[in-house]
Amino acid sequence: MTQGNVKKTRRQRREKLLPTIDSPADLKKLSIDQLPKLAQEIRDAICDQVSKTGGHLAPNLGVVEMTIAMHYVFDFSYDRLLFDVGHQCYPHKLLTGRRHLLPKLRTREGMAGFPDPHESDYDLFSVGHAGTSIPTGVGMARGDTLLGEGDRNVVALIGDASIVNGVAMEGLNNAGTLERQFLVMLNDNGMSIATPKGALAGYFDRVRISATYEEFKKRAREVLKRMPYGDALEEIYGTMGDMMKAAFHRGHMFEQFGLMCIGPVDGHDLPALVDMLEEVKDFGRPILLHCKTVKGKGFEFSTGDPTAFHSPKPFTVEGCRVEAKKGGRSFTAAYADAMIDVMGRDDKVFAVTAAMPDGTGLNKIMPAFPDRSLDTGICESHAMDMCAGMVKSGLKPFFAVYSTFVQRALDQVFQEVALHGLPVRVCMDRAGYVGGDGAVHHGFMDISMFSVFPKAALLAACDEPTLRAGLEFMRQYEDGPSFIRYPRDDVPADPIESDAPPFELGKAHLLRRGRKRRPDLAILAYGIMVYETLAALEELDQQGYDVELYDARFAKPVDIDLLRDLVDREIAVLTIEDHALAGGFGANVLEACNDARLSTDRIHRMGMPMRWVYQDSRAEQLGSVGLDAAGIARRVRTILDTSGAEPIDTPSTPDIRVNASHVDLPRRDTGTPRA
Amino acid sequence: MTQGNVKKTRRQRREKLLPTIDSPADLKKLSIDQLPKLAQEIRDAICDQVSKTGGHLAPNLGVVEMTIAMHYVFDFSYDRLLFDVGHQCYPHKLLTGRRHLLPKLRTREGMAGFPDPHESDYDLFSVGHAGTSIPTGVGMARGDTLLGEGDRNVVALIGDASIVNGVAMEGLNNAGTLERQFLVMLNDNGMSIATPKGALAGYFDRVRISATYEEFKKRAREVLKRMPYGDALEEIYGTMGDMMKAAFHRGHMFEQFGLMCIGPVDGHDLPALVDMLEEVKDFGRPILLHCKTVKGKGFEFSTGDPTAFHSPKPFTVEGCRVEAKKGGRSFTAAYADAMIDVMGRDDKVFAVTAAMPDGTGLNKIMPAFPDRSLDTGICESHAMDMCAGMVKSGLKPFFAVYSTFVQRALDQVFQEVALHGLPVRVCMDRAGYVGGDGAVHHGFMDISMFSVFPKAALLAACDEPTLRAGLEFMRQYEDGPSFIRYPRDDVPADPIESDAPPFELGKAHLLRRGRKRRPDLAILAYGIMVYETLAALEELDQQGYDVELYDARFAKPVDIDLLRDLVDREIAVLTIEDHALAGGFGANVLEACNDARLSTDRIHRMGMPMRWVYQDSRAEQLGSVGLDAAGIARRVRTILDTSGAEPIDTPSTPDIRVNASHVDLPRRDTGTPRA
Repeated sequence: MTQGNVKKTRRQRREKLLPTIDSPADLKKLSIDQLPKLAQEIRDAICDQVSKTGGHLAPNLGVVEMTIAMHYVFDFSYDRLLFDVGHQCYPHKLLTGRRHLLPKLRTREGMAGFPDPHESDYDLFSVGHAGTSIPTGVGMARGDTLLGEGDRNVVALIGDASIVNGVAMEGLNNAGTLERQFLVMLNDNGMSIATPKGALAGYFDRVRISATYEEFKKRAREVLKRMPYGDALEEIYGTMGDMMKAAFHRGHMFEQFGLMCIGPVDGHDLPALVDMLEEVKDFGRPILLHCKTVKGKGFEFSTGDPTAFHSPKPFTVEGCRVEAKKGGRSFTAAYADAMIDVMGRDDKVFAVTAAMPDGTGLNKIMPAFPDRSLDTGICESHAMDMCAGMVKSGLKPFFAVYSTFVQRALDQVFQEVALHGLPVRVCMDRAGYVGGDGAVHHGFMDISMFSVFPKAALLAACDEPTLRAGLEFMRQYEDGPSFIRYPRDDVPADPIESDAPPFELGKAHLLRRGRKRRPDLAILAYGIMVYETLAALEELDQQGYDVELYDARFAKPVDIDLLRDLVDREIAVLTIEDHALAGGFGANVLEACNDARLSTDRIHRMGMPMRWVYQDSRAEQLGSVGLDAAGIARRVRTILDTSGAEPIDTPSTPDIRVNASHVDLPRRDTGTPRA
Repeated sequence: MTQGNVKKTRRQRREKLLPTIDSPADLKKLSIDQLPKLAQEIRDAICDQVSKTGGHLAPNLGVVEMTIAMHYVFDFSYDRLLFDVGHQCYPHKLLTGRRHLLPKLRTREGMAGFPDPHESDYDLFSVGHAGTSIPTGVGMARGDTLLGEGDRNVVALIGDASIVNGVAMEGLNNAGTLERQFLVMLNDNGMSIATPKGALAGYFDRVRISATYEEFKKRAREVLKRMPYGDALEEIYGTMGDMMKAAFHRGHMFEQFGLMCIGPVDGHDLPALVDMLEEVKDFGRPILLHCKTVKGKGFEFSTGDPTAFHSPKPFTVEGCRVEAKKGGRSFTAAYADAMIDVMGRDDKVFAVTAAMPDGTGLNKIMPAFPDRSLDTGICESHAMDMCAGMVKSGLKPFFAVYSTFVQRALDQVFQEVALHGLPVRVCMDRAGYVGGDGAVHHGFMDISMFSVFPKAALLAACDEPTLRAGLEFMRQYEDGPSFIRYPRDDVPADPIESDAPPFELGKAHLLRRGRKRRPDLAILAYGIMVYETLAALEELDQQGYDVELYDARFAKPVDIDLLRDLVDREIAVLTIEDHALAGGFGANVLEACNDARLSTDRIHRMGMPMRWVYQDSRAEQLGSVGLDAAGIARRVRTILDTSGAEPIDTPSTPDIRVNASHVDLPRRDTGTPRA
């Protein structure tokens, strides 16, 4: 593989195929024999880039041939290609005129790590959550047909871990009722993110080719070649189905959903894939092509440890060793260690993840407590219900989940958890802006979702000691569900208090008293914003402002006694959070004060504004909306110097993604002003 | 069947079995031969009651035998019985000591229409949303086993429309990995709510008994009788699986999920069911028993039209005619007619429901526009994604869904709809308190869920003219998703304006000007609360209060110009909504004012308080939290007479369900005070 900036001769460069591909039209000019070479160049480009900047590696290496074959056979300037999860979109982007965006992968000026309609009309949906390609594809298939464009073929790409997600299975069940072309490309690598844990994973293992692809082709071609459309299709479909089943294996699972199933076939055999797709391309019924692929294909380190190379940080290859560039200690790592302590103290505690053992720290917990930990696979709805059942049985489940993915379990939190006052503990990693993963992964609405539930306790950790104290509070809190949030970031290396005092329900914690009895301003910072505020205070102190600082700790219930005291003493208050302003911690403060008939005239709020923020570093994202030290200092000065008559949302950067690659469909996602 | 108060002789009464059943222990004293008679008595009792008060009829009649058989074989004072959706729980309640609650079915003092842990320890979860019995059961199975009580058998009852719901399929996939007893009782009536629309519905139709139950029994008994536990089970499981497949049909769908599947069997053959359950009772692997039942079994009118008798209003049987007691014109009916008009004007409009054609009015729309309407079955997540795809194709989908069920689609609204600014139109029926269905069905969080999304427009209709105007606004609104809410209630017979002026984004509508230039109070009523307020004003007018009334129309964006004007003129403001106070319309008003640096000192809020409200009439529920005319008048007087220093939540009734039947497990779900 290519590493770094290996110099190439002019001749070598001339021979390269990838630089000649500015759109899928250029791809179609190549002969089938040239495609494997193109695949290798795409692999090299991706490995090279991810080693420098980090990004999704193994998923992309696994689908290079499938992507080339799909673009070679279909015309996605007219046909519809839907991605699922979407972290396997790099080859697709390289083939659709976005090579030039690769060097700035996952930054504001560069290529998004997920499909993105802002970048290209070839991307239909920004995705990042699993299972949506089939249901959105069903909608497009129905829509196109109804609008007289039923000849637009629809192709939904989906992985084996994703296809067993609830919305995907609902989609399959509905796809089976379509009476038109609809192709599901199943990318079965046996471990889409981590190893899938459901029973169907075993099913995929059992499904094996019992006859060769060549055998199938010989028989199927005879049928397909003379295929009439219309009524006769029904009969031929039956015949074909029988033949294929006989040729391959008996009774593919998804045939029960009404799809004709073909495969499994080798997802890396380019000529065979192209041949197969040519044959099924215009088949007028829902069909599933089961492709077996190797995650990380073509990069030996990656195939050896595909989970580690799912989405690595920058790394270097030194001979036969791969060295990941070291980062600091993450909140995720701190969570794992804190949970191991909690589980050592309390044998009722049970740790759950939904397919994110690495991302949530469960990979460290599971070996320590194999009987009291479980990875359910990608199914947050089921996982939340399972936790509710576990509480009923007497366990104390802690469900570690990304803030953005727990959105999938809102209704379960309502009916099975909160309505029964069950103390399910939800630990929300990646709260706030998440950096390179961009808008599909921000944890921006966990407070607004869960504040509506009686007895729900909403907490935040700002550093490792508060994370430990928060988890201990949750272990003991039995009156209802509890939710703690922490960012995709390193824990502060030098915490304010190395041993945080215990959390008390609804009580904020004074971190720094003002100099005067009546300071200029009291800041109630929620979670990690405590540390951004501390940084801002260095500057503000020097400028002579007298600011008191509280770690708010609870977004629900908020500390109404503290608020009453501050309001009564006519001290201005500023709430700061890396959560949406709408329905967030500050909003809860306003509601609580209004309920208690406390004036909110001196209360100000900072948080994530009412607009989408796209991929970039987390620091850049926070800075762009003023949630960094500089922005906080600026805001404090504005409040104290102008009696707070400032506009709410003063981003230091424009709120539209500037992207040179997309001129056809300029979209303004600036958000309506919050009203 | 028994109808009304047919007089019975003393002797007839003595012979009755049902009055002797105070708990499942009494049931077990009966002989198998007596069970069919008991089944008939249960049917009679349910028909009799539902004809008087309304309630779920056909679902309960369909599961009488299954319920008796389960209680006869298992001991659910120790074993675990999980209901799904739960509207089929009446026979279960009659067998578990709750006969005396039946006469006040679906009221505060009577029997809840859904399972309810407040009533009895035999009910594990309050349910009403589909698909949860399997995932919660998986949690209990894992929990019990881990805590050394793995001998507690777990039984999850689920219908054929519910089992294809996403969370149920996720649960099945995980159930397949259990290495212990786990029984799924599939109640396949071919039409769990309306006719299921997915491909699996066809699958269920295809699954037919290819050998008799007796044949199965003969073979299976030989194996089961000498069944050792432990390692040998694996082999026997395989053998049994093969035998059963051979005996019944080939390759049951759910075997792919790792469950052994038996059936279909006749779900009304009590002796056979008991025999079958005895045999599989302690089988140490996940197993699915596929029971074919007839929805409405035993009541001829109900089997003839099970959809109409799914949850009828009170009715009378006159000879061979059934007469439903007529109600007024519902918002649902008004929606259907309004949509038919919209669809007549705009051929891009597409109407969608997720298994609720009757409840949403689609049953009237679908015959009028068969090509532009669709029932997806119970799969709100898929339906929302499908709508997103349809918008991408150029259609204007209107998704009619209960407010409580759209909670299932929050993440799809986020990623596939709002993130892309797609104008999916969501029409939320049954917003606010829903009456007899109780806490599992209230629409209390649609505003707090969706207010966080840029460009989302949140509307409410207060009567038929505003519903029409609101839908027309949504048809034209293309900047993002729009959401309209309306209650489970009749439209006001005498609307304030027979032709409501068009909706303008973020603009409230003045309905009644105050007498003075600066009235005592301005009420901003959201949706149907307009009419409760109008009723309150009759009283307040007489008492000399000068109140101005606005139809708020939009919860997002709120009318900041109006608010500025009112605040500047120092007029007190009261917001009223039948939505949770937390994150609701009033909360959005507070946030908007704070952002605009308008004082909220004179702003007051009324809405649904932070506690669960249980089954009763909608009017009683509204009254119990002060959201009726009397409560509004009371609140207005308090604000104007005491400068608003009143407590926020002053229910006129206690907030705990008083229920004589449950003494073992008193639960206080009073909610923590909103803080």
